[in-house]
Amino acid sequence: MSILRRPFITAGSKLLQTTKAFLFDCDGVIWKGNQPIAGSIETLNYLKKIGKLVFYVTNNSTKSREEVLKKLRHFGVNSSLDEILTSSYATAQYLTTLPDPGEVYVVGEEGIFEELEAVGIKCHGREDNDQHDISALEHMNTNVRTVVVGLDRSINYVKLSRAGSYIRDFGCTFIATNTDASFPYPGGVIAGGSGCIVSAIETICGKKPDCIVGKPNRSFIDIIRLHHPQIQISDMLMVGDRLDTDIVFARRNGISSLLVFSGVTSESDMKACDDKLAPHFYTNSLHDLLPLLSSC
Amino acid sequence: MSILRRPFITAGSKLLQTTKAFLFDCDGVIWKGNQPIAGSIETLNYLKKIGKLVFYVTNNSTKSREEVLKKLRHFGVNSSLDEILTSSYATAQYLTTLPDPGEVYVVGEEGIFEELEAVGIKCHGREDNDQHDISALEHMNTNVRTVVVGLDRSINYVKLSRAGSYIRDFGCTFIATNTDASFPYPGGVIAGGSGCIVSAIETICGKKPDCIVGKPNRSFIDIIRLHHPQIQISDMLMVGDRLDTDIVFARRNGISSLLVFSGVTSESDMKACDDKLAPHFYTNSLHDLLPLLSSC
Repeated sequence: MSILRRPFITAGSKLLQTTKAFLFDCDGVIWKGNQPIAGSIETLNYLKKIGKLVFYVTNNSTKSREEVLKKLRHFGVNSSLDEILTSSYATAQYLTTLPDPGEVYVVGEEGIFEELEAVGIKCHGREDNDQHDISALEHMNTNVRTVVVGLDRSINYVKLSRAGSYIRDFGCTFIATNTDASFPYPGGVIAGGSGCIVSAIETICGKKPDCIVGKPNRSFIDIIRLHHPQIQISDMLMVGDRLDTDIVFARRNGISSLLVFSGVTSESDMKACDDKLAPHFYTNSLHDLLPLLSSC
Repeated sequence: MSILRRPFITAGSKLLQTTKAFLFDCDGVIWKGNQPIAGSIETLNYLKKIGKLVFYVTNNSTKSREEVLKKLRHFGVNSSLDEILTSSYATAQYLTTLPDPGEVYVVGEEGIFEELEAVGIKCHGREDNDQHDISALEHMNTNVRTVVVGLDRSINYVKLSRAGSYIRDFGCTFIATNTDASFPYPGGVIAGGSGCIVSAIETICGKKPDCIVGKPNRSFIDIIRLHHPQIQISDMLMVGDRLDTDIVFARRNGISSLLVFSGVTSESDMKACDDKLAPHFYTNSLHDLLPLLSSC
């Protein structure tokens, strides 16, 4: 486990045999936008066929688990809802462990509302989506005791200020679904991730989140182990395309890690990165797993 | 100069005599919202009458200098445009010192556009005020070489992402008018300051601003000394209501400081604050200066 940056092929067959639970990031690993990455669907279905546990662990909070499942099935992946872990689902699960989360002010998209409402939490925030009148801040809801922040492409000034004020002036708990800084957008530009919304609110309220749920933190592992207590950390392999979320998530939590170059990280990025971010194994894409799987 | 937290009355007469240039913050010192603070107008006019230099130094980038002048005159203050220094004006002055600022993408309000355009800089950004279609990011302007960020109450996801991408992917210079975190809003809540917008963009591009223009940095002093080279640092007194901007600005730049309790900081806040933030002198409001002025 201590040797880093090894080509997957060197240990691939043994690793595939000993791994009981495969954790896959989605965007950049299984698909890119609306296109599946070559070989990914066959690999996922083969793993299931030979009895491996497969989980989809994504920091994307904008989609509900149902929507992710629909996308996987549309691509032909044999999957079920209990295999899908989004940061919004993990946030909802986390909130149910709090003694009294109260009502929640959400800065985020429908994926968060749906998952929180599915566990019976009353959510506010949709009403501020088109709110551009700052005087709306004069009306705060004293039942709100938690603020949940994720990626929100309808972000506006009233939402940022209201969230900051709930945390600073009303003592609300501050939960971030994840803090991904940005993601690539077609045309060589970047678009803001959840982390930019979280930073803005941190600045307003002068406080860091009480909990950041998604990768690289361990909530996804806690949920997997809750439902599969027989699975140990040493039985898991995390497959991802990002050093700062997927690989750090694996490394920080003692899981083996496989970096694929089908997403945002290139081989030269990996070679240049700090050892703390380096994966145990790397390969081009999930396609490379297929020839090894037949020996499992 | 090294003794902190002294009541103004103890050294007031001498300080008023030796000070040649008075720097006033506006909101919380001269006015609160649309109401002048009792005694402030008489004090300002008296200082001018006895030949003192008076400057209004405000981090508020949303208003142009013309608008601030209009407000001062409406309250009966004998003032002129050259006495008014806003962070947007100081930003425009700073940009004129750069060898080649290019065209500028502005995340901010009209005060910034007006001041930059007044020095002949071509600005972009207004067109994104109502832009909620993320695909707009596919069209970037390669003439843009600088991004200026201030308070923007029409902030949206496209503007944040575009600014971050100009800085990270197009190598644009990143200038912040100021980084005030928040300001009080009626009803005991807070609203986001320029700092929250700057933080969001910092997160997206992974970079801090190349220059933060407003208080507590020294741009305002540079502008005053450019036009009044006879005025020394030791001739100045900064009068403000905020520890983190006004008083730190004075302390960091070697200027005497007077904190007034007519704005956001209370006497107990001042007594509890770190020595680094503490003012040299304090008093309730500008009203307290009036009885001492007759001896100048």
